[in-house]
Amino acid sequence: MLLTGGTGGAKLVLGFHEEAAAEDLVVVCNTADDSVVHGLHVSPDVDTIVYTLAGLIDPAKGWGVRDDTFTVLDQLKRLGNETWFRLGDRDIATHLTRTRLLSEGQPLSRVTAALCRALGVRSTVLPMTDQRVETRLATPDGEISFQEYFVKARWQPEVLSLRYQGIEESRPAPGMLEAIAGAALVVVCPSNPATSIGPILAVPGVRQALRDTPARVVAVSPMVQGRSFSGPAHKLMVTLGVEASVTGLAEAYRDFVDVLLIDTEDRHLRPAIERLGVRVLVTSIRMDTLEDKKRLARELLNPSI
Amino acid sequence: MLLTGGTGGAKLVLGFHEEAAAEDLVVVCNTADDSVVHGLHVSPDVDTIVYTLAGLIDPAKGWGVRDDTFTVLDQLKRLGNETWFRLGDRDIATHLTRTRLLSEGQPLSRVTAALCRALGVRSTVLPMTDQRVETRLATPDGEISFQEYFVKARWQPEVLSLRYQGIEESRPAPGMLEAIAGAALVVVCPSNPATSIGPILAVPGVRQALRDTPARVVAVSPMVQGRSFSGPAHKLMVTLGVEASVTGLAEAYRDFVDVLLIDTEDRHLRPAIERLGVRVLVTSIRMDTLEDKKRLARELLNPSI
Repeated sequence: MLLTGGTGGAKLVLGFHEEAAAEDLVVVCNTADDSVVHGLHVSPDVDTIVYTLAGLIDPAKGWGVRDDTFTVLDQLKRLGNETWFRLGDRDIATHLTRTRLLSEGQPLSRVTAALCRALGVRSTVLPMTDQRVETRLATPDGEISFQEYFVKARWQPEVLSLRYQGIEESRPAPGMLEAIAGAALVVVCPSNPATSIGPILAVPGVRQALRDTPARVVAVSPMVQGRSFSGPAHKLMVTLGVEASVTGLAEAYRDFVDVLLIDTEDRHLRPAIERLGVRVLVTSIRMDTLEDKKRLARELLNPSI
Repeated sequence: MLLTGGTGGAKLVLGFHEEAAAEDLVVVCNTADDSVVHGLHVSPDVDTIVYTLAGLIDPAKGWGVRDDTFTVLDQLKRLGNETWFRLGDRDIATHLTRTRLLSEGQPLSRVTAALCRALGVRSTVLPMTDQRVETRLATPDGEISFQEYFVKARWQPEVLSLRYQGIEESRPAPGMLEAIAGAALVVVCPSNPATSIGPILAVPGVRQALRDTPARVVAVSPMVQGRSFSGPAHKLMVTLGVEASVTGLAEAYRDFVDVLLIDTEDRHLRPAIERLGVRVLVTSIRMDTLEDKKRLARELLNPSI
């Protein structure tokens, strides 16, 4: 099973999808970036994973549906709506379906399963929780949502701290703790440790389940030489109280992670990480091509890891 | 001012839009056909009129936005949704905007005014009420909504009776009674008397305001020789307790209408209608071309009518 956020983690999810039986994959997605946009419930990380597994993902952007059009959004703009959050037409069909099913009282996990079935996805995609959790970031200009920070402000504001609003009342999605306990392997994807993996770990019971599982728990670093491949992961690690490096990452994950995959460029940090009690595997963790993604998945699936 | 439903009435509204100053037009629209589709609040008659006045209407279908695409709907179908109610992509932008503004607590009349402003419509479009009213039709197989009857079942079921659910608690939209009282002319458009004009008349206070206004009230027949130009108007007149003819129409409207425009093909019914106390004007009421629509509007605007 994999724990993941959106674009970064989706690359590794795709590698696993190519290298393992689809039915064997369980992917737990962050939902703390979920937003209501034009009245629609948007689950960016869930959608990125579902579209990836359905073969629908836009490979250039890493989110949204391939070859999607933006007719609705253009008209929404003409009608005076804010349109900084880009929703394609086919993508909107997903959000309309989800919003309606949620309003009819179905939990997000069941809605996600229905969307997966409709799109021919045979893996299990679990939102981390059926309850509403929202990452809120404190900036010098006040508190904002993750989408306001990431999309609207292009992750430029200084982030003083963050919190996962609603996390105390959240419960793991049905089947999630069982999946962790029964997994052959748990992979923490190269997603933002503060805003993607952090919320999943903070759902009551999840972190303890990861500590307790007999499965090997392997994390893949989302950064090289203190900088994330894309997005603000390194900037936000300060909110976890650790430094922006793979050493900081090992510190943040050390209580539940057995193995940390770091890039060859970070190999000098291996001794420092192993002193924290985390075993280190050095490899190339860049996933620019499909072959990269498949190779990394194969390395992780190797029972001798 | 004009009282109207959707497609039929919109033809005459277009004629008035061409022949009178846009700012002088007040169009009151039926809202008892409003539906929630894919969680979106759809106001078919309001939209048809707004699109008509904005120059956006699809001239072939008589509803929806010209040259619209159906990308969202196609994807909704793929996701397993019912898609007998055809919503185009640009049209969906209208419904998303309306649904969001309504959910934020704005009344339908204000939402409609905002949509008109955004689309450059300078006439006043008033939904008949800000409260939710829904036409329910009793058929041998149970009660259904107007859209289920009209779109899904293609107006084939036998209709035993109908009711406007919520009408008792509805109030005329702000400014509507004042507009009736202060109008230079009130035109009852050639719309379905049972399901388009009927609900407007049933909003408490409206029928009395039409009886009381010093303005001439003129109705245009939606039928010739007992059959409506399009749609089920003649079929549904039975629910008003009158026969499906212009004579039946005159009976249904006689308490507030001064003049009834009927087609030359119905001219033999003139004496019977005038015995009911309604003055009759015989003309060609077909509106196949733009010139037809303009001519009919000019005839109605003639002060000697």
